[in-house]
Amino acid sequence: MLTNDQLAAWDREAFFHPSTHLAQHARGETMSRIMTGGEGIYVEDRDGNRLIDAFAGLYCVNVGYGRKQIADAIAEQAGKLAYYHAYVGHGTEASITLAHMIMERAPAHMSKVYFGLSGSDANETNVKLVWYYNNVRGMPEKRKIISRWRGYHGSGLITGSLTGLATFHNKFGLPLPQVVHTEAPYFYRRKDLGMSEAEFVAYCAAELEELIKREGPDTIAAFIGEPALGTGGLVPPPAGYWAAIQEVLGKYDILLIADEVVTGFGRLGSMFGSDHYGIKPDIITIAKGLTSAYAPLSGSIVSDKVWKVLEEGTDQFGPIGHGWTYSAHPICAAAGVANLQLIDEMGLVQNAGTVGAAFKQALIDRLGNHPHVGDIRGEGLLCAVEFVEDRDSRRYYDPARKVGAQVAAALLSEGVIARAMPEADVIGFAPPLCLTLPEAGIIADRMAKAVKTVLGE
Amino acid sequence: MLTNDQLAAWDREAFFHPSTHLAQHARGETMSRIMTGGEGIYVEDRDGNRLIDAFAGLYCVNVGYGRKQIADAIAEQAGKLAYYHAYVGHGTEASITLAHMIMERAPAHMSKVYFGLSGSDANETNVKLVWYYNNVRGMPEKRKIISRWRGYHGSGLITGSLTGLATFHNKFGLPLPQVVHTEAPYFYRRKDLGMSEAEFVAYCAAELEELIKREGPDTIAAFIGEPALGTGGLVPPPAGYWAAIQEVLGKYDILLIADEVVTGFGRLGSMFGSDHYGIKPDIITIAKGLTSAYAPLSGSIVSDKVWKVLEEGTDQFGPIGHGWTYSAHPICAAAGVANLQLIDEMGLVQNAGTVGAAFKQALIDRLGNHPHVGDIRGEGLLCAVEFVEDRDSRRYYDPARKVGAQVAAALLSEGVIARAMPEADVIGFAPPLCLTLPEAGIIADRMAKAVKTVLGE
Repeated sequence: MLTNDQLAAWDREAFFHPSTHLAQHARGETMSRIMTGGEGIYVEDRDGNRLIDAFAGLYCVNVGYGRKQIADAIAEQAGKLAYYHAYVGHGTEASITLAHMIMERAPAHMSKVYFGLSGSDANETNVKLVWYYNNVRGMPEKRKIISRWRGYHGSGLITGSLTGLATFHNKFGLPLPQVVHTEAPYFYRRKDLGMSEAEFVAYCAAELEELIKREGPDTIAAFIGEPALGTGGLVPPPAGYWAAIQEVLGKYDILLIADEVVTGFGRLGSMFGSDHYGIKPDIITIAKGLTSAYAPLSGSIVSDKVWKVLEEGTDQFGPIGHGWTYSAHPICAAAGVANLQLIDEMGLVQNAGTVGAAFKQALIDRLGNHPHVGDIRGEGLLCAVEFVEDRDSRRYYDPARKVGAQVAAALLSEGVIARAMPEADVIGFAPPLCLTLPEAGIIADRMAKAVKTVLGE
Repeated sequence: MLTNDQLAAWDREAFFHPSTHLAQHARGETMSRIMTGGEGIYVEDRDGNRLIDAFAGLYCVNVGYGRKQIADAIAEQAGKLAYYHAYVGHGTEASITLAHMIMERAPAHMSKVYFGLSGSDANETNVKLVWYYNNVRGMPEKRKIISRWRGYHGSGLITGSLTGLATFHNKFGLPLPQVVHTEAPYFYRRKDLGMSEAEFVAYCAAELEELIKREGPDTIAAFIGEPALGTGGLVPPPAGYWAAIQEVLGKYDILLIADEVVTGFGRLGSMFGSDHYGIKPDIITIAKGLTSAYAPLSGSIVSDKVWKVLEEGTDQFGPIGHGWTYSAHPICAAAGVANLQLIDEMGLVQNAGTVGAAFKQALIDRLGNHPHVGDIRGEGLLCAVEFVEDRDSRRYYDPARKVGAQVAAALLSEGVIARAMPEADVIGFAPPLCLTLPEAGIIADRMAKAVKTVLGE
């Protein structure tokens, strides 16, 4: 048995952690937390702490921790055949069954699923497919992708460019010029406080159309968006937003990519966010909820319309030059099959809707009148509380005060993991979809206590 | 139990396979092979075929199929804690131990490892880190990456651009302008047949230097190369190549990325290709051999020199804006730990060297004088046979004849999986590193038979 001290030393010597202050970590100035187990909404670390994970890892452990059914499926596949590739028509019972199960659940006009490992690589695939699609159609200049400010679509070079948050651009020289950004569908943060929700939606649609005209419709290939904003603030769209956006896209022959990495498989209380908001995408990105993170797996679901052009492409030019070694990895596919079965058996899509509504109400009951709480929002089990210095004028806090991070730290000391979202003072909640009503109440209570600790009554 | 017919129907209806002729597959015109198990160098499919996998999946199942030690490690981790993220200093015993084990094995001047899922995403990380590195140093224009024609570095947008094969560029609008290509270190295919190996090396170095000067040294950030070419033809470098290349890079402050996705952890008979050829890289890409593909895992190993600048960056600008949800995934890390232990216990690095040399000799013994065999080459267990219409004048076959693909098909009907490499008539061998001498002889015998079937005595 390795000691904590030995592991801690190795950690600082050898391990390059994602999204971390590298210098502070290497110098031992920041926490090194070694996780050892979990059950339901609880995770445990090696120092004996047992915490409520109200963010489900990174909003991905949707079925909750410690599900034997998925662990057993992984073990069985690992014992039978841990790996074979999926190139040129190869597959396994697990990968084929999972493809079938995904298509059973996806909107009816979708056709096939390509498997990747992460949301980032799935969006990478999506952009590549969109470029191929327009090349096959003889429109090689129709190539730019429109994303929204505050969208999150990955952390690669193109996918980090799609992401509309400065943290992921600064010092990397992003965004690349193939990506242009339009208005975030973030009603609470609208520039003009006097705008109604309907006026704001009309404004977003007009901004989009103006951008398309400015860049030239013949240069715009696709629009990508999360049904509800994720990392950019956990923001459900204003009413009517998706209908207005889709109307604009339809006018200019622009494909719609729905990034459902966070929303797919139940997070909003519907199987897909596209169903939830009446979106008819050409491509859907899936990841996190597909396996509840028990193994790394993502997917690009393409519609009949896109698939038809891809088929034409291979008839004209031969096999498609795209593939990851680990596409449709057997143990990841086995995890996916078991996870989707478990979501059905446990009724988690419906639970996310009902418990999510109750959780939001519990937050409103406790914090709705707090002078520094500007907004409490949510859809299903994706909820957020936004803080402001002055509620009436919606005056934001100075970012240097790190109010969001302070509240997250206070909440952690109450035994609850939530996430301080970037570029705003927002605490985000995205607990496992198995959350119960009593557990929702506990989290809301502790959140209220943490807010009062940091910001007073 | 699902029937083969049912699976075959689902496969064609729902599954978008990588590197496949999509239209033919959907129409049922191409094979749909469902894999069920494997042991050592053998794989089995659902129709009862048992085949020698002389390409180890996609040169990744280095320890061979059916290793209980790795399957058990995956099962144990899945049962204990299948997932927690590695952001802001989080880890698991498995991920920290694996980081330590990698750094024990990597060249001494390397510092830390960032974990990804695939070789593609690791190279994506590498480019992002190189851009960050030069931004922190105040050189934001130093940004282009030089790759070689016939290099393979992934299938994404930037990584597919790094790849120097037309199959991965055509109809996708790649390469992107951030990438420029230089001469492939492929002595057999040198333009001027009169060149000696030393002259060819000098020519490669001169071409590289000319490209750097033409583009402007202040615009070139890094050079990426596989120690021995992989997908581009399985080509060990000509003698002295890496010394000559490194001398040029050193003159112009250009980082060197060694893409060891194929060569890392023993394939060439050394732990790393960098050790094997005296390369001193600034960043090393690892993937396949890290877990022997039992679970998807890759890594970017950064040197002390690079790490120091990354630390400076976070001291100046805060936490690094880069991360994948599944970075350092616990079950993948557990697979990596068990795999690296097994490689040591089975002595596979040494075995790859000795059995690899014997395998190459066996191919030379059987095919060295064949009139259509132009080149037999290899290093460790990475070997290739290249066909030409005329041996003396090195006249290539018309690609439309698909000679390589024909030989691969004939070999498959002898029960051996090998790979017809793209853009040349080359059959590639990269069997599991556990290959025995008798097994090497069997593969060489069947290869000789397949060649005679297709191309005569």
